[in-house]
Amino acid sequence: MQRILSIQLKEHKGEKVRIAGWVHRVRRLKSVTFLIVRDVEGLSQVVTTEAIEIPEGSVVEVTGIVTATGQVELTSPEIRVLSGVDVPLPFEMHRPVLSAGLNTQLDHAALALRHPARALNLRIAAAATAGFRKALEEQRFVEIQTPKIVESATESGANVFQLDYFGRPAYLAQSPQFFKQLMVGVFERVFEVGPVFRAEPSDTARHLAQYTSLDAEMGFIEDHRDVMRALTGTLNGMFAEVTARTGFVTPEVPAEIPAVHFTEALRIAGAPEDEPDLAPAHERALGEWALREHGSAFVYVTGYPMRKRPFYTHPSPDPVHSNGFDLLFKGLEIVTGGQRLHRYEDYVEALGRAGEPIEPYRGYLDGFRYGMPPHGGWAIGLERLVARLVGAVNVREVTAFPRDLQRLAP
Amino acid sequence: MQRILSIQLKEHKGEKVRIAGWVHRVRRLKSVTFLIVRDVEGLSQVVTTEAIEIPEGSVVEVTGIVTATGQVELTSPEIRVLSGVDVPLPFEMHRPVLSAGLNTQLDHAALALRHPARALNLRIAAAATAGFRKALEEQRFVEIQTPKIVESATESGANVFQLDYFGRPAYLAQSPQFFKQLMVGVFERVFEVGPVFRAEPSDTARHLAQYTSLDAEMGFIEDHRDVMRALTGTLNGMFAEVTARTGFVTPEVPAEIPAVHFTEALRIAGAPEDEPDLAPAHERALGEWALREHGSAFVYVTGYPMRKRPFYTHPSPDPVHSNGFDLLFKGLEIVTGGQRLHRYEDYVEALGRAGEPIEPYRGYLDGFRYGMPPHGGWAIGLERLVARLVGAVNVREVTAFPRDLQRLAP
Repeated sequence: MQRILSIQLKEHKGEKVRIAGWVHRVRRLKSVTFLIVRDVEGLSQVVTTEAIEIPEGSVVEVTGIVTATGQVELTSPEIRVLSGVDVPLPFEMHRPVLSAGLNTQLDHAALALRHPARALNLRIAAAATAGFRKALEEQRFVEIQTPKIVESATESGANVFQLDYFGRPAYLAQSPQFFKQLMVGVFERVFEVGPVFRAEPSDTARHLAQYTSLDAEMGFIEDHRDVMRALTGTLNGMFAEVTARTGFVTPEVPAEIPAVHFTEALRIAGAPEDEPDLAPAHERALGEWALREHGSAFVYVTGYPMRKRPFYTHPSPDPVHSNGFDLLFKGLEIVTGGQRLHRYEDYVEALGRAGEPIEPYRGYLDGFRYGMPPHGGWAIGLERLVARLVGAVNVREVTAFPRDLQRLAP
Repeated sequence: MQRILSIQLKEHKGEKVRIAGWVHRVRRLKSVTFLIVRDVEGLSQVVTTEAIEIPEGSVVEVTGIVTATGQVELTSPEIRVLSGVDVPLPFEMHRPVLSAGLNTQLDHAALALRHPARALNLRIAAAATAGFRKALEEQRFVEIQTPKIVESATESGANVFQLDYFGRPAYLAQSPQFFKQLMVGVFERVFEVGPVFRAEPSDTARHLAQYTSLDAEMGFIEDHRDVMRALTGTLNGMFAEVTARTGFVTPEVPAEIPAVHFTEALRIAGAPEDEPDLAPAHERALGEWALREHGSAFVYVTGYPMRKRPFYTHPSPDPVHSNGFDLLFKGLEIVTGGQRLHRYEDYVEALGRAGEPIEPYRGYLDGFRYGMPPHGGWAIGLERLVARLVGAVNVREVTAFPRDLQRLAP
C-alpha cells in the first residue's frame, strides 16, 4: 500500500490507507489515546483504544481507516515503529513556537529545524532562491559556478579564511565578484547562487562566517540604473515565488523603488554631511523615511563615495561619488551593487591609486584587456533578506546550520 | 534606440537598429570591409566601404540599416568602440574549434570561455542543473544550503583541505552528506547544488579539487531501489532540459536503467571475483556491455561490498554487500548513491566497528537519536556528467575556472 501524506487524508474517507511520520504528540484520555503524527505536510490524528507507549520523535508507519467525524482521523490503526527514540527530546516540539533559546536550538539543529516554524523559514529561503533564478532566466541570465578557493586575498584584503592548498596558502572567496565579471564576457548576463565566506570577527545578529550570496552581473548597460531596474524586477519575482510556494504574504515591491542619492540620504538620516558611509542607525532612519514618504519597504541609496567602495567601482559623472548603490529593506542593507569599471587601463589606474600590485589580479585583468562591455551587478545576502522578510531578529533563525565566530558544529 | 541581438536582426529588415558585441573578425576585401560582431546569441555581419581598424576582441556598438541581400547584414554603419583592445589575442577566436592547447586556454580562461564551443559546454551544465532542480521539485524535494566549513575531517578522513577558522583548525566539506541526511528529518526530501572540495593528489583528466555536486536525499524508502528510481527520473528531466534549452541531442535515459549486482559486474568485466571495487577499466567494460546488451548508455552497479563503502552505508540483506550503488554513464562513474543507516544504535555500532570515536559525530548523530526514517540519496558530479555528455576528454574542458593540484588561478 502506497504511503499517503497528511494533507491527502481527506481525499480517502472510508478507505484503508498508510501514513508515516514522526510522533508529534501522544495524548491519553480515559478510554482512548490520540497519536499525532507529523509529516512534511502537516499533522494526522490517529485514534486508538489500545494503550500505546511510543516516545515522541519516534518514526512510525500507521495503517488505518480514514474516518471523518467532525475532523478527519485514522481509526483501527496498526502501528509499526520504523525508528524508535529512547531519550527525552531536549525541548518540546508540539508547541506553536519553540520555547528553547536560540543557542539550544542551534546545538540541536537536527531536531529544532523540524519544528514547523523553523522549517517554514527555510522553505521561504528555498522559494526566494527559486524565484531569483526564474526571474533572471526570464531576463536571459545564465547560471554559473565559480571557484570558492582563490590564490590571493584580494578584493578587500581583510577578513578572509586562509587554507592549506596542497602545501601553499590559498583563501576562501569572499564573493564571486571577479568571476562573475569575467563571465559577462561569455554570456553577457550571469548569475550564481552559492556560499561566500567572511572571517569577520563581528559577533552580531546579522553576521555569518558563511552565507548564501545571490549574485548577478550584466553587460551592455548605460549605468547602474539599468542594474537597479533588473534587481527590482528580480525581487518582485522572488517575493511572488515565496507567496506562490509557501503562502507567506510578502510586502509589495514597488515597480519603481524610491532612490535617494547618498548626500540626500545623510540629510534624511540626520547624519553629518562629511560621513563617508551609513551606520545601522542611519539605515533604520532611511527605512522609516521610505515607508512614511513612499509607502515602500525598500529604498535604494545611490552615489556612495568612491573612497568607501572597492577599487572596481565605476565613478559617477561627479568623480567623488560612485555608480554604486545599496538596497535597504525595512532599514537594513540586504543588497550591494553598482556599475563596475570595464576598461583595462581604468583597472590599472585604480589598482595603482589603491596602492595594489597588478600581479595578483593578472587572471582577472585578462578579461578587461581582451574587451569587456560596460557592466554592473549586485549581491543579495539570502539570510538577511529572509530574516527581514519573516521578521526574525537574528539571521541564525533562518539558517539551517550557521557558522560564526563561536559555532562550527553541527 | 534599444539594442537588439544578432538573432533578432532578421525581424527588422529595412529598419535602422543598434547592435553591440565583440569584434569577432574583420575581413578586408578590395572595396568593402566585413566586420563580424559576436554577441551572446551569435554573429552579425556589418558591411562598410570605409577603412576600419578595430582590433579583434574590442567591444563595439553599431547602428545601421538591416539589409537582406542573400544574407541579413547591417549596412551604412556608425561604429562606436565601447572598450578597445590594444594587444593581440593569445589565440584566434574565430575558428570553429580553439586551436590553443588546454593549458593555454585555462591560463586565459576569461577569453577562451567566450569561444562558442567552450561556452556551449557551460550552457549545457547550467541546463542540466536547472533540469535537476525542476525534476526534483516536481517530486516534492526542497532545496537546502549547508555549511562548507566543518569541524572534523570526518566521512573519509583523508584528502580534506584544512583552514584556519578564527584560530582553530577546520576543514572544507567533502560533501553535504551529513547535512542532507539531517535535513531528511525536516523536509523528508531535499536537494542541494553546491561546491564540494577534495584535496586529492590525483592529477587526472577526471579529478578536480573543487567540483559541483548535485546532491539529493529522500526519506521513507523501502531500500536503495526507491532511490535509483528517483534518480533515473531526475536524469531524464536533466537531459530533457539540456535539449530544450541548448538543442544538444542527449542519449536516451531508459525508463528502467539496467542494474547489475557487484558480483555479476566483476564477472562481466572479467575481474577476479575477490576484487573489492571496480577499476576504471572494469567500468569501461561494463559500459560497453550495457550498450551492447541493453542499448543503454547507463548502467547501475548495486551491492558494492560494505568494506569499501562509508560507515553510514546500509547493508543489503546479505551483510557482506551494501545497499549502495554507482551509476556509470558511458563507462564512467558519475553518481554514487545508496540507502543509509537510519537508527542511532546502528550508527554507534558502525562507528565502533570502523574504530571511529563518537564525539566528532555528535551533531550528526543527534538527528538519528531523535528519530529518522529509512532514507537514501545520491550525489552526481556535474562536471563529469557534462564531460561525458559532450564527449570532452578532460573535465577541465567543461569547467569555467578549474581548481586542481597545479591550478589556483584565474
